Amino acid sequence: MAAPGRDITVALLGGGTVGGQVARIICENADELASRVGARMVLTGVAVRDLARERAGIDPTLLTTDAASLASSGADVVVELIGGIEPANSWILSAIGAGSSVVTANKALVAERGQYLHDAAEAAGVDLYYEAAVAGAIPLLRPLADSLAGDRVRRVLGIVNGTTNYILTRMDEEAADYAEVLAEAQRLGFAEADPTADVAGYDAAAKAAILASLAFHTRVTLDDVYREGITDVTAEDVAAAKEMGFVVKLLFVAELTQGGLCVRVHPAMVPRSHPLASVRLAFNAVFVEADAAGEVMFYGQGAGGQPTASAVLGDLVTAARHRVTGSLGAAASTHGDFNLLPVTDATTCFYVNLHVIDQPGVLARIAQKFADHGVSISTVRQDGEGDDARLIIRTHAARDGSLYATLADLRSLPEVRQVVGSMRVIRGPGE
Amino acid sequence: MAAPGRDITVALLGGGTVGGQVARIICENADELASRVGARMVLTGVAVRDLARERAGIDPTLLTTDAASLASSGADVVVELIGGIEPANSWILSAIGAGSSVVTANKALVAERGQYLHDAAEAAGVDLYYEAAVAGAIPLLRPLADSLAGDRVRRVLGIVNGTTNYILTRMDEEAADYAEVLAEAQRLGFAEADPTADVAGYDAAAKAAILASLAFHTRVTLDDVYREGITDVTAEDVAAAKEMGFVVKLLFVAELTQGGLCVRVHPAMVPRSHPLASVRLAFNAVFVEADAAGEVMFYGQGAGGQPTASAVLGDLVTAARHRVTGSLGAAASTHGDFNLLPVTDATTCFYVNLHVIDQPGVLARIAQKFADHGVSISTVRQDGEGDDARLIIRTHAARDGSLYATLADLRSLPEVRQVVGSMRVIRGPGE
Repeated sequence: MAAPGRDITVALLGGGTVGGQVARIICENADELASRVGARMVLTGVAVRDLARERAGIDPTLLTTDAASLASSGADVVVELIGGIEPANSWILSAIGAGSSVVTANKALVAERGQYLHDAAEAAGVDLYYEAAVAGAIPLLRPLADSLAGDRVRRVLGIVNGTTNYILTRMDEEAADYAEVLAEAQRLGFAEADPTADVAGYDAAAKAAILASLAFHTRVTLDDVYREGITDVTAEDVAAAKEMGFVVKLLFVAELTQGGLCVRVHPAMVPRSHPLASVRLAFNAVFVEADAAGEVMFYGQGAGGQPTASAVLGDLVTAARHRVTGSLGAAASTHGDFNLLPVTDATTCFYVNLHVIDQPGVLARIAQKFADHGVSISTVRQDGEGDDARLIIRTHAARDGSLYATLADLRSLPEVRQVVGSMRVIRGPGE
Repeated sequence: MAAPGRDITVALLGGGTVGGQVARIICENADELASRVGARMVLTGVAVRDLARERAGIDPTLLTTDAASLASSGADVVVELIGGIEPANSWILSAIGAGSSVVTANKALVAERGQYLHDAAEAAGVDLYYEAAVAGAIPLLRPLADSLAGDRVRRVLGIVNGTTNYILTRMDEEAADYAEVLAEAQRLGFAEADPTADVAGYDAAAKAAILASLAFHTRVTLDDVYREGITDVTAEDVAAAKEMGFVVKLLFVAELTQGGLCVRVHPAMVPRSHPLASVRLAFNAVFVEADAAGEVMFYGQGAGGQPTASAVLGDLVTAARHRVTGSLGAAASTHGDFNLLPVTDATTCFYVNLHVIDQPGVLARIAQKFADHGVSISTVRQDGEGDDARLIIRTHAARDGSLYATLADLRSLPEVRQVVGSMRVIRGPGE
C-alpha cells in the first residue's frame, strides 16, 4: 500500500500518439485525476526510441531510451504502449517482477500471451489491465469480466475492426466496389498502405481471442480463431444482401453450444433490424447475449489516439487507486474449460448466389444437393433469364461444414455455371 | 478479510421476482459462482412479508419476516430488493453498521440518498453497489465510474424508461395516438394501471440523477432534475418529426456547459442517424460524449426480473470477491462541484408547429418575435392553406428560457391561432 500522502509513480513505455496523449492528460488534468485516485500521479519517465524527436505534451527531461531500466524501476504503474510481442513481453514481465501494476494497449501480446501474463501478475500481487487493446475507448472488458460475472454468456459477436467496417459501409451505401473503396480508404488514412492485418481479419481475430477469453472465462488464443477476411466480398454480395434486408459486416462470433465454444471471424449478412446493422463507418460495437441479462450492446470509437488514451487512462486510474487503497482488481478467472470447436461444427444460416443454366428441373437438382448434406432451404429467389439466370438461396441453420460440402458438390454440377457468392447470415434479435 | 476457505454469507431482503431469480441462480450456478468469487456463496436468509406464499427457487427454511434482524445479522453481503425509501434506507444503514457490504436495486433510494449512503459505506469500509437501479442489465454505472475515470465527460443522454420508449416507438411506427397506444401497453403489461411514474418522467428523472452523479463525479438528486413527461406528445408531433427525419424519444440529458451542469428529462426529437434513434420498444440506451473517448453507447434491456437479477448478481460477485481478497471497490468520488443550472439556462434547438392565419406578412411578424428573444430560425416550412395554414419552424441552438418566452409571445399574437406543438431537438453525432 502506498504511504498516505505519497505520490503514485507512473512509467510510460512509448511516447507516440497515444503515449503523448496520456502524458498530456496526466499533466493537464492532474488535480481532477488526483481526486479520483486519492493521490497525485507523477510521471517518472517516458521511454522512446528517438530522443531528438519533438513530442508535444511530454516534458523532455522525462525522456529516456533505456526502456528496460524504466520498466524494471519499480514504478507503481508501468504503462506499455510499444506494441508487438518482443521486447514488450519481456519489459512487462520485468515490470511485474519489480512489483509494478501494468496497463497495456498491446492487442497482439494479450491475444497470444494473455493467460501467462495474468498468471505472472496474480503471482506477484499486481494488477494487469488492457481495456485499450480491444475496441478503443469502449468500456467493454471490465463489464464483461465484472458486471456480467453472475450471468452466463451464450454468444458474443460484433464489429471490432474499423477499417473493414468503413469499407463495407461505403460498399453498402454507395454500391461501390471493394477495390475502389479500399483505395479511397487508404488515401483518407482509414486503411494502411498494406491493409492485410485488417482486411484479412487478423486484427479482428486477435480481439476475438481476448473477448472470448473474458466472456467465457476460458483461454482462447489467436490460433484458436477461425478467420476469413473481406477481400472476396463483392459489390454483388452487398447488393444481394441489401435487397434481402441485410447489410454485410465483418463479424467476430464467439458462441457456446452443447459441443463447445466456437470463435470465428468472417463476413456475415446482418438483418437491418439488428442493432449491429446500424454501426457505420469506423465505429465498433460488441453485442452480448446472456442468460439473464438478455441482449446488451457496447458501441463507440474503436481506434484513434484519443479514444485509446481514454481507455489507457481509465485502466491507469483504477490501477493507481488500488495502489492507494492497497487492494487489487479481480484476477482473470479461467475456470471455464470448454472444448474449442472448429468452424465446420458451428451452426449458422447461409446465403448462396448461383449462376445457373436456365432449364426446367435445375432447381430440383440443386435442391437435392442441399438435401444430400442435410441443409434445409428457407427461401429461393430466381433472378434473370437465359445466360443471366440466378438462384438466390437462403438456408435454415445448418452445420457450417455441411454447407461447404454442398457448395463443393454444386461446383461440379453441370447446371451450375458458377457459385457467384455465399455468405453466413446472422439471425436477428429474438429469432 | 474472509478466512481462507470460509463461505461468503449473503442475506436477501425481498423475495419477489428479482429476489427469486437471484436466489435461484446462487443455488443453480453455485460452482461457477464459487470459482469467480474464490469462495462459495451461501444464502443465510430471505426476508419476505408473507411466509405462506409459494416462492419458486427459494428454500422455504430460509424465509423470515424479520427483515430488520436479517439486515443487521452481519452477513458478508446484504442484498436489498424491497424498494422505496423506508424501511429500505434504515435496513441498509443497519447492514452497513454491522459491517456488511450492500447491493441494492433501489433507484428511488439511491436517487434521493445516494451520497449519504456512499458516505456511510465509506466510513464503515464496506462496498455499496447499485448497478440494477439504472437501466436493468446494462453494465453502465461501473464503466461510467471506472473506465471513463481518466476522461472528461461532456454530455450523457439516453433512454432509460422502457414504458415510454415502447409507447413512442409504436406512435412512430404505426402513426398511432398516445391514448390508444398507452391503453394497449397497459393491456400487454408494458405500462402500469397508473402509468404516472413512467409517462410523467419521474422514473427517468431518478435514473438521470444517479447517472449524472456518477458521470460528473458530483451530487445530483431527484429535485435537481427538470422533468417533463410524454403525456402532451401528439400524433402530429410524431408525424412532423418523422417528416423531418427525426424520431421522438423521452430523453434524459445531463450536460456540462461553461455555466454549470444541467440535468433534465423531456421529450426530444432525435435525428434518425443518431444511434439512440434505433433504440426501439422497451430497450434502453445511454450515450456518453467524453473529451477523449468520443462517443460511447450502452444498449440493452432496461427492466424485467431476469435482467435486473443479472445486474444484482454482477454486483454481488464483485462485492463477494472483495470480501475474499480483503479489498474494496473505489468509493464514489464527488470532487466535481458544479453549479446546477435550471433548464431555462440550457441551450438547445427547437421545433415549433404553429397554426396561423393565412395572410401576407404573417411570417415576418412571427419571425420578429423569435428575433426579439435572440432565437435564430434555421428552417421554416409552410404547410396547408386557408384555415389549415401551418408554419413548421426549426431554430438554431438557443437558450431554453428564451424559446419559451418566444412561445408565450406567439400565443398572444393575433396571427397565431394556436401553438400546435413545440419540442426540443437533439443534435446528431458530430453536429
